[in-house]
Amino acid sequence: MEKQQLQEDIKVRRSRLQEAMLAADIEGCILTTAVNVFYMTGKVYNGYFYLSVDGKVIHFVKRPEGIDFENTIYIRKPEQMAEELCSAGFSLPKSLLLETDVVSFGECTRILNTFNLKEAANASVLLRKIRSVKTPFELEQVRACARRHEAVYKLIPSLYKRGMTDVELQIEIEHAMRQHGSLGLFRSYGDNMDIYMGSLLAGENAEAPSPFDFALGGAGETPLIPIGASGEKMREGQTIMVDMAGNYTPWMTDMTRVFSIGRTLDIAYRAHQVSIDIHNKIMDIVKPGIGCAEVYNVAMEMVKDNNLEAYFMGTKQQAKFVGHGVGLEINEPPVMTPRSKELFEPNIVFALEPKFVIPEVGAVGIENTYVITEDGIEKLTVLEEGIIEL
Amino acid sequence: MEKQQLQEDIKVRRSRLQEAMLAADIEGCILTTAVNVFYMTGKVYNGYFYLSVDGKVIHFVKRPEGIDFENTIYIRKPEQMAEELCSAGFSLPKSLLLETDVVSFGECTRILNTFNLKEAANASVLLRKIRSVKTPFELEQVRACARRHEAVYKLIPSLYKRGMTDVELQIEIEHAMRQHGSLGLFRSYGDNMDIYMGSLLAGENAEAPSPFDFALGGAGETPLIPIGASGEKMREGQTIMVDMAGNYTPWMTDMTRVFSIGRTLDIAYRAHQVSIDIHNKIMDIVKPGIGCAEVYNVAMEMVKDNNLEAYFMGTKQQAKFVGHGVGLEINEPPVMTPRSKELFEPNIVFALEPKFVIPEVGAVGIENTYVITEDGIEKLTVLEEGIIEL
Repeated sequence: MEKQQLQEDIKVRRSRLQEAMLAADIEGCILTTAVNVFYMTGKVYNGYFYLSVDGKVIHFVKRPEGIDFENTIYIRKPEQMAEELCSAGFSLPKSLLLETDVVSFGECTRILNTFNLKEAANASVLLRKIRSVKTPFELEQVRACARRHEAVYKLIPSLYKRGMTDVELQIEIEHAMRQHGSLGLFRSYGDNMDIYMGSLLAGENAEAPSPFDFALGGAGETPLIPIGASGEKMREGQTIMVDMAGNYTPWMTDMTRVFSIGRTLDIAYRAHQVSIDIHNKIMDIVKPGIGCAEVYNVAMEMVKDNNLEAYFMGTKQQAKFVGHGVGLEINEPPVMTPRSKELFEPNIVFALEPKFVIPEVGAVGIENTYVITEDGIEKLTVLEEGIIEL
Repeated sequence: MEKQQLQEDIKVRRSRLQEAMLAADIEGCILTTAVNVFYMTGKVYNGYFYLSVDGKVIHFVKRPEGIDFENTIYIRKPEQMAEELCSAGFSLPKSLLLETDVVSFGECTRILNTFNLKEAANASVLLRKIRSVKTPFELEQVRACARRHEAVYKLIPSLYKRGMTDVELQIEIEHAMRQHGSLGLFRSYGDNMDIYMGSLLAGENAEAPSPFDFALGGAGETPLIPIGASGEKMREGQTIMVDMAGNYTPWMTDMTRVFSIGRTLDIAYRAHQVSIDIHNKIMDIVKPGIGCAEVYNVAMEMVKDNNLEAYFMGTKQQAKFVGHGVGLEINEPPVMTPRSKELFEPNIVFALEPKFVIPEVGAVGIENTYVITEDGIEKLTVLEEGIIEL
């Protein structure tokens, strides 16, 4: 049953790509990244998923042996694709979509040469756009993921022990995540998104700028992975922001909650409440047709009304977005920036994360994952939102 | 003290690159992947490390704010590099090394256009070659990593409980790894190397072919990450091959050990002993000047002498290598294949992993990490090698 539903769903995904190819007058599309091959086939293989504008599919597979799709052709190198297409009676595409924002210069150049083409259209951007609108099958997966994400976060007070370092607490949360079915690998898009199983920020470490494109930073445990928990012992009065991966199904959720060791400063509670108020305001106004920039601008207005700009999305380095799409990768479009031109449409899943960093205290604010409905918005990650005292 | 040692070490690394540029008559090198930026600077930043053939360094940084290197120039996009080089009094390079096997087509094209160049030399291959020979600083890190890798493997019998699934055991090992300082993120090179914290293969699952370029496969828990443990309950008579990440320092070790639930079949013990014999033979013959192909060919000869070809490096899908370099990434050169032309030289660190998959039993064989010395080879991962009965 689920298998049949998946096959129907994959048809929908392929037809969306085909429609986009028709509209852009492009004859062929070659996808090779794990995420896009998975999206288009339900499996990951090493090779190339080929779609022609008239809807024909060929799986050019290097590994593994034994793939059981119709229209599978085993190859050793990309140069064999053109030859095999000819043998199979296809005409060679005169225009081609390639994942040029991700696939290496070397590999794209080989593929272009094989097809005697000088340039490619950008499949990275197009697939991210297509994937941003979820199908019913995908939404089921996101909902199942949210239930487990919530269940693990509920355990956090019982995992905390006085005197722990931030890393020690994170390790116990990781362990609970895996026991609740976390798939482990945490997929993000782009070169500047290295992270392990998510971010836990306690105290001043929340102020440390990171090279990566996450909302907040943290010094990390090693200069090789400069993000998140740093190994410092946590202290009374600090906040602990938990933004650990919601990777319990291929389609993810993103959720942040804040804990405090004993009581913390009034300004932290006040800023945290502003974050909750922003969420509630956004739930009132967002629906299909509303612009993504509106979310940023409404949030920023509320931040300014409360004189909290200096702490918003960091102190030493401030992120210029308050939300982002979520799916097979944790950072999908649309992104809620002040100048975004994108509009919300039904079945877009996104995370909203208005956060503050309070010097000497730590990070506050919550993040939830939402789905746009036909006429509004639905919260997918449902869990107590106030600062939870440990 | 360690900081000064690191600075000296980084000078050595840069001068190796400079020498290679001189030899190849290339004027500039731009590195942007986290691993190569870290190798050349000791930090990870989002941006571009630039080295000119006369030894000048510029750090073009996008993030984080507050980088304290000499010669740091903050930029927003790669197009600013040429302009900034001119302002700084550099002449623009007329030939350029770029990481063309990793950096995207889009980004390489932008950089080439900025410098008015039609093509780039391959910095991916060159840096991997340079990184394959370790410095004294790096070797210290590898040795420290090996000690922790061994300590965690010693705990495995105490983590095992009868009736566990393979994933449940793996989760407990992951937890012990993190408690012993595993950095989490497990770095590999190339697009076909998705994995979480390593591989644990029990029973028949060891036969499942994988799309990825690891020595062995396994079905995995989800079609999104088809590698390793599959969630099956482990049974009496099966072997459990543990090949979990040795990522306790930035420079890694690779080690595999085998456990059995009760006694297993004679052929499994016999094949496992052949793997140990191969290790001992290789320790006898490998030294600087010996070819990497020799390792593969000697191993294969011993496999054939024992009539074990059908099980060597898998059954349904067989890997065509028995070892590989190890360092900041788990899969570095040299690779021990039948046709490799590479020769061993002092301070190459590599893992040897002659493994067998025995149908209905599971995988056997061991993996150790070695370093080539001035006149031989030294074993870095020292731990009981026989099959350990649980």
